Amino acid sequence: MNISRRRLFGLGAAGVAAVGAGAVAGRALVTDAPTAAHAATTSAPVSFYGVHQAGIVTPAQDRLHFVAFDVTTDKRAELVELLQDWTSAAARMTQGKEAGTFGAVGGDREAPPDDTGEALGLPASGLTLTIGFGASLFDKRFGLADRKPAALADLPAFRGDDIVPEISGGDICVQACANDPQVAVHAIRNLARIGFGKVSVRYSQLGFGRTSSTSRAQATPRNLMGFKDGTANLKLEDTQLLREQLWAAAGDGQEWMDGGSYLVTRKIRMHIETWDRAPLSEQEAIFGRDKGEGAPLTGAKEFDEPDFAKNGADGEPMIADNAHVRLAHPSVHGGAHLLRRGYNFVDGSDGLGRLDAGLFFMAYQRDPHKQFVPIQRELAAKDALNEYIKHVSSGLFACPPGVTDAGDYWGRALFT
Amino acid sequence: MNISRRRLFGLGAAGVAAVGAGAVAGRALVTDAPTAAHAATTSAPVSFYGVHQAGIVTPAQDRLHFVAFDVTTDKRAELVELLQDWTSAAARMTQGKEAGTFGAVGGDREAPPDDTGEALGLPASGLTLTIGFGASLFDKRFGLADRKPAALADLPAFRGDDIVPEISGGDICVQACANDPQVAVHAIRNLARIGFGKVSVRYSQLGFGRTSSTSRAQATPRNLMGFKDGTANLKLEDTQLLREQLWAAAGDGQEWMDGGSYLVTRKIRMHIETWDRAPLSEQEAIFGRDKGEGAPLTGAKEFDEPDFAKNGADGEPMIADNAHVRLAHPSVHGGAHLLRRGYNFVDGSDGLGRLDAGLFFMAYQRDPHKQFVPIQRELAAKDALNEYIKHVSSGLFACPPGVTDAGDYWGRALFT
Repeated sequence: MNISRRRLFGLGAAGVAAVGAGAVAGRALVTDAPTAAHAATTSAPVSFYGVHQAGIVTPAQDRLHFVAFDVTTDKRAELVELLQDWTSAAARMTQGKEAGTFGAVGGDREAPPDDTGEALGLPASGLTLTIGFGASLFDKRFGLADRKPAALADLPAFRGDDIVPEISGGDICVQACANDPQVAVHAIRNLARIGFGKVSVRYSQLGFGRTSSTSRAQATPRNLMGFKDGTANLKLEDTQLLREQLWAAAGDGQEWMDGGSYLVTRKIRMHIETWDRAPLSEQEAIFGRDKGEGAPLTGAKEFDEPDFAKNGADGEPMIADNAHVRLAHPSVHGGAHLLRRGYNFVDGSDGLGRLDAGLFFMAYQRDPHKQFVPIQRELAAKDALNEYIKHVSSGLFACPPGVTDAGDYWGRALFT
Repeated sequence: MNISRRRLFGLGAAGVAAVGAGAVAGRALVTDAPTAAHAATTSAPVSFYGVHQAGIVTPAQDRLHFVAFDVTTDKRAELVELLQDWTSAAARMTQGKEAGTFGAVGGDREAPPDDTGEALGLPASGLTLTIGFGASLFDKRFGLADRKPAALADLPAFRGDDIVPEISGGDICVQACANDPQVAVHAIRNLARIGFGKVSVRYSQLGFGRTSSTSRAQATPRNLMGFKDGTANLKLEDTQLLREQLWAAAGDGQEWMDGGSYLVTRKIRMHIETWDRAPLSEQEAIFGRDKGEGAPLTGAKEFDEPDFAKNGADGEPMIADNAHVRLAHPSVHGGAHLLRRGYNFVDGSDGLGRLDAGLFFMAYQRDPHKQFVPIQRELAAKDALNEYIKHVSSGLFACPPGVTDAGDYWGRALFT
């Protein structure tokens, strides 16, 4: 793996050693372990404090509420105060507590409660809250221009993109994942409440049925095209790859991001009515996998490695040149991996008699311009799946390292 | 209870006896029993066949996908064929099977599969599918005008209504409830797929966190205002009340509806940002209940009967004249009950920095013009809650009796 990593990140042997033995990577192994164990139950809390933020390698929960905020204050001190207040509320809510000390039913009855109450009596449900900062936060307002990581440079436009600005970008994002949607919704709603007057909701997205596994302990789920998705995903057990391709580290350019990761979001609308009328053989050729087992068309089992060189009886490649599995495979991108964490969505219908449904794609990585961008450029140009999908939103966020203790807060290293 | 029922339905003693001892009501007790038992597990199947449709008194599952279709064919035979095909698919899917015999991965590989595949490997998850017919189905197209029940007459406009036609009404609705949203979404999507060329999706709504219990075995859940909701709901254990106020029966006017029920849907947008800034005391005064326990302000426990005559130390009623619990209470509506089966929703945000969230209200009853309408008229005129909510969609559907066996189909009695 060293070769492909070096190709990706241009690090020499010394750089590799530094990353591999660094404090951040070393501690990550310790703090990630409880997360994996907790995932075995659906209602238990996930630890909030750690070197990395929870909600990235945490085994993917079943439900999502993602929100992007515009910051409406232009005062740096107010923004910092908000991040502190949010961190405190997040530390509480992820442990199944109310957002504030004067909860929905206690405290001063003549004041609005510090919690909205709809999660009273519900368990923590594996809730994780993960924050990210968009490129627009690094404009002139808060004096952060010289802290903007190179990796946060705008994504290029891709062929076929049909991006709607109103549901793209954002100064700050928060990803809430939980095994109970009411818990995820409650968390985002209370962060929005706490942020009143300082931020406003730019867009928000609900999702269900995680479309990727982030642990080998999880079965591979299916997307709304009916196929298993994320078989080749980066998983929390891939210790070495996570170090190389998931976590930002010393030498990447902006120290405040060491131990953080970059999140790309893409809302991908599926033309499911058209897809549903495609023959099974065509569907399987497009993915390059069979639908039932999820095996590559050159293999028998889901985790068999696809053999892209193998031809069928007709002399043609068994996995077509424009098959999704081929174009997205790490072997054709210098070993570039993503940690995908997407969710299915159905947003009702579109007024044309069709369900408004698809995939809210989310992927974490160390440098999107070396990982997501080349992969997506290839897919956008060639993927047979493009006939059935449309990218309608796009986001890129720098997700800072984790909060280490109660004296720390989200993004502290960026503001100090 | 006879008095209030008689007041509601104007039935004499003979009518009461006929309903109470009738075949429909008698068999209902038998077929409802397994439903209650099944609810104890979240993944088990719920029986599809029965005198009544499942999904009405079935203990409310946690997730909803509701869809309203416009019928696009004008051929009665095609509509009947669709209902037959749908029934067959529903009988299969509710038992955890694929929608058709040539499933997503079997059958003819050169044809589109009979199932879309995203629920492969998932259990039945308590899925119920419940169909209803809107008033518009009884226009001239299908020769059904003289079969339209009086109870299906349009709902009146209520004070404060802000109904959006595009997300209201519909020729046919299907309510999918399940404990896994992917299972509910899969079911609706496959019904839409089967209906291609005969129906198109008019609107669809996802919901979560059932906001009412329909069985005493269930804890009362909370709505997005943080309050327990549906404490006084009709429940499947209320055998006598269900007979009187839930199921249409002989003498109600249209025989094909005997054993059926009428569904009112109202999408109620909540101004949650405003609500979240209201003091706790105001929130509790508006509901007439305390937020923590859900007890009426005159009592200590959730199921204590509210005492509307009781005054506080200030000489004012402890439960205000415009409190929600007072205005909606059966005792002020001649004993009129509803079987509520609503769900919370969050549809993203509204472009004004606010979450687009609220309650998708659904209520079943024997005659909406004697039950929902007078209750809602009172609420629309006086409810203190109106400051924080807005009704944005409305639907009324006649849900026929259940499908008794594999030779039967949804709505057969209407078309024969």
